[in-house]
Amino acid sequence: MARATIKQVAAAAEVSTATVSRVLNNSDYVSEEIKERVMAAVNRLNYRPSAIARSLKQDRTYMIGVIVPDISNPYFMGISRGVEDIVGKEGFQLIFCSSDENPEKERRLLKLLQEKRVDAVVLATSGGNDPAIKQIADSNMPIVLVDRKLDSPDTGSMLDLVAEDNTEGASRLTRKLLEEGHTAIGVVNGPTRSSTGRERLEGVRNAMKAFGLNEGPMVYNGDFSTEDGIRAVQQFLNAEHRPTAIISLNNRMSLGVLLEIVRSGLKIPADMAVASFGEVEAGPLLKESGLYYMEQHPYDMGIKAGEILLSRIREEARQDPPAYEIYSNEVKQLI
Amino acid sequence: MARATIKQVAAAAEVSTATVSRVLNNSDYVSEEIKERVMAAVNRLNYRPSAIARSLKQDRTYMIGVIVPDISNPYFMGISRGVEDIVGKEGFQLIFCSSDENPEKERRLLKLLQEKRVDAVVLATSGGNDPAIKQIADSNMPIVLVDRKLDSPDTGSMLDLVAEDNTEGASRLTRKLLEEGHTAIGVVNGPTRSSTGRERLEGVRNAMKAFGLNEGPMVYNGDFSTEDGIRAVQQFLNAEHRPTAIISLNNRMSLGVLLEIVRSGLKIPADMAVASFGEVEAGPLLKESGLYYMEQHPYDMGIKAGEILLSRIREEARQDPPAYEIYSNEVKQLI
Repeated sequence: MARATIKQVAAAAEVSTATVSRVLNNSDYVSEEIKERVMAAVNRLNYRPSAIARSLKQDRTYMIGVIVPDISNPYFMGISRGVEDIVGKEGFQLIFCSSDENPEKERRLLKLLQEKRVDAVVLATSGGNDPAIKQIADSNMPIVLVDRKLDSPDTGSMLDLVAEDNTEGASRLTRKLLEEGHTAIGVVNGPTRSSTGRERLEGVRNAMKAFGLNEGPMVYNGDFSTEDGIRAVQQFLNAEHRPTAIISLNNRMSLGVLLEIVRSGLKIPADMAVASFGEVEAGPLLKESGLYYMEQHPYDMGIKAGEILLSRIREEARQDPPAYEIYSNEVKQLI
Repeated sequence: MARATIKQVAAAAEVSTATVSRVLNNSDYVSEEIKERVMAAVNRLNYRPSAIARSLKQDRTYMIGVIVPDISNPYFMGISRGVEDIVGKEGFQLIFCSSDENPEKERRLLKLLQEKRVDAVVLATSGGNDPAIKQIADSNMPIVLVDRKLDSPDTGSMLDLVAEDNTEGASRLTRKLLEEGHTAIGVVNGPTRSSTGRERLEGVRNAMKAFGLNEGPMVYNGDFSTEDGIRAVQQFLNAEHRPTAIISLNNRMSLGVLLEIVRSGLKIPADMAVASFGEVEAGPLLKESGLYYMEQHPYDMGIKAGEILLSRIREEARQDPPAYEIYSNEVKQLI
């Protein structure tokens, strides 16, 4: 069945197209009798007013675009659930896009969302896109950064941000291993084009220096994926000076680290201590692992991001100074 | 900075709006000199033609909507990656929506995607939405069902489908446990409003009957979530006739089952055998678990779904009979 047009509906109801439009938009007085006739025709013809045409008029699409580097990472989905629980009440719906840690894909997705005129964007950037992001902000579309900052500190402070204290967090995690006597530490880092990659690595280095160690950590630069956690362990185990402890700087890579250590027949922490930035959902499968992990609160961060978004979408708060919300979390141990 | 209009661009370039449009759409001959003037104005004013306005003309948005019940389940993301690898080459982008196994939310999302005039929909339905789905199909928007069938068998055969042989798969999984001597079997099932929930449970029952057992399994009806896997085990362990084996009918619930069994201090499979419909990524953390699992091939299913989609979007294949692709998989054991 082809899509019915407003003209066909008007003809079927024996009214003008303007009247059909008035009924559908509730925009002016129309008698009950005419209303019923129009709605009967709408239902009979299965007419659906094009939201595209409508959004041109109302200038609101009630869509909020969410771009994250890894759509199946429970961390980002926790943030999204928080956002949704706030904005959903106001009738907004979330659509998700996955950049796969690929700045070029992220750029395309930003363009798509801008062209589709979503009402706002939530972005955990893969890095390298300051100009494109700044251009969106300049076009008056609200954009809230989550988890990750822009590359350049000066553009960074121009946008709303909800993130974690990555440097301090990674330092705390590292100190746990240092206090247990580890000095040969392997770091599984994310890509340094992302702020979380840069800041967490800096945190590890700071802690080692503050502890009086001259040698830095052995660094594997991964892509925040489980596969990279696996590869990092393989590299560490084959190294001439094998580390006695591994710090993995996101939850996905940590799962890979644990899988590969178990596969290698090593015991955690007796043969290899492990500390993870972020909880590993499956961690408790390792009985008495002694795994250290940095707690994260993605849902709370999402709630905060959602509140900021709503205040920006409502015109009155558009000119407020950028929000800067940084969560500082504790290190826990899995027993 | 407010959004520049095509009029402002035309004024700045000292040409007509029709000329601006010709340049941007490459739709007719325009001299190089004029082209350069227009593009300079476009860039200076940061003009971005509204894709909404354009899509009204071209009748194509190059967006494909993907609705799944659980956006962070790697199974659905595997399917999506397959779809994307096919349709991305043709310039289509995926936008994702999560129905959270909630038929009412799914209905709203279907409406949203239809109103936004995506070019096609990929749907793993939460069930209960046959009329809304049929209405979309009737409106001539291609829709490919993945993983899950419609509720009613007669509407089901009207749409493209890429799914698994759930009944036979669950039977195979059950037979492994039966052959090992288990007769008291606990089943962690998904919601029976979804076809995967219904068919997999049927598969378990068929296998037990064929094995000559009069007693059916003990059934916990969950929501395909990790939390429900945990709750199911708690219930089974407190039951008067505690099962000696558990079959969990999706990967998420299986993780919950494993977590709770480990937490309870029970050994797998010595104290409790476990079989999972779908691989558990973290399963190998359990050393020598003897876990049975049904392999799945979500990426291949996504490739197939993407190919079907493309053939439907291209008008010429619109009238082909519905595709019906069913994957039949093997049981493996984690050693």
